[in-house]
Amino acid sequence: MRKLLHNEILKLRLTEEQIGNVMRHPIYLMLCNIRSLYNVGSIFRTADAALVSEVILTGYTPHPPRKEIEKTALGADKTVPWRYFKEHKKALIYLKEQNIKIFALEITDCGKPYYSITKSEFPLCIVLGNELTGIDNEILSLCDDSIEIPMFGVKHSLNVSVAAGIATFEAIKVWLNLNNT
Amino acid sequence: MRKLLHNEILKLRLTEEQIGNVMRHPIYLMLCNIRSLYNVGSIFRTADAALVSEVILTGYTPHPPRKEIEKTALGADKTVPWRYFKEHKKALIYLKEQNIKIFALEITDCGKPYYSITKSEFPLCIVLGNELTGIDNEILSLCDDSIEIPMFGVKHSLNVSVAAGIATFEAIKVWLNLNNT
Repeated sequence: MRKLLHNEILKLRLTEEQIGNVMRHPIYLMLCNIRSLYNVGSIFRTADAALVSEVILTGYTPHPPRKEIEKTALGADKTVPWRYFKEHKKALIYLKEQNIKIFALEITDCGKPYYSITKSEFPLCIVLGNELTGIDNEILSLCDDSIEIPMFGVKHSLNVSVAAGIATFEAIKVWLNLNNT
Repeated sequence: MRKLLHNEILKLRLTEEQIGNVMRHPIYLMLCNIRSLYNVGSIFRTADAALVSEVILTGYTPHPPRKEIEKTALGADKTVPWRYFKEHKKALIYLKEQNIKIFALEITDCGKPYYSITKSEFPLCIVLGNELTGIDNEILSLCDDSIEIPMFGVKHSLNVSVAAGIATFEAIKVWLNLNNT
């Protein structure tokens, strides 16, 4: 077992030229009122790795170009398509017009686990809310469904960029039929 | 669809008293030479949510008590058992003595996907390496196997706390037989 070298890994990845021409996965991430530049940058990095279609930033979520986002994203803010809507509702309309199913990643009375998404539900958008208060009720009421990550400990929730990664890579597995069997 | 209130969520979680007496999942996280207090704190928060058995911090990974870890972990450094070994090798011996299978989360020539872990491989430890350089070759050579998260974009890797979350919750799904079918 040998760790791959920098150059060996490079050959496995797309180049910045190639990335503009590939078919992206039909997964969107919507970031509503995320406060932390660090979380936004980290989610961009995940979005690059997962080859999601778009990152949609709304409300007071900081958006590129910002040095701090670029630094945490390691430049992934330049390899992932993104758009910003000041009004959350306009972003939701933009998604609905494209028949993208909108899933809130939130603790609701619905309680549907994040691993229950099925392939028929793509294209889909995973909505992520504020670090402290989650997704505003007004936004939640316009989502099609909600999913959550089971929590087995004492604390309420995961870091938002970690939760985004877990839900996004689960969606990838469903879309690409990746499983162990 | 209604967001649960703070008090409603509280009732779903374990209390700090209960957490000491529960059977934890047979999953260990080993953090080798992680640099960022933020990442350590975030991984503690994930470890609480996933009810892992222990977080093992080695080398120059910062360890509790540190205000910055506590802040990012939202106090999860107090609800998750942890231990610190200055020498990575001693931590690996500690794990091996308990027959815990050691998986490096690393890009190697092995290329086994993170979702290929099977239930027969528990108890297991997921080893996480430095933010820039990954897991040292010396540590890697003492791991039993390596797993990786598929990367579809331009960038080399995910943020380490995001990668830890993805791999940990996949292990949880395997251990608890959580799936959609």
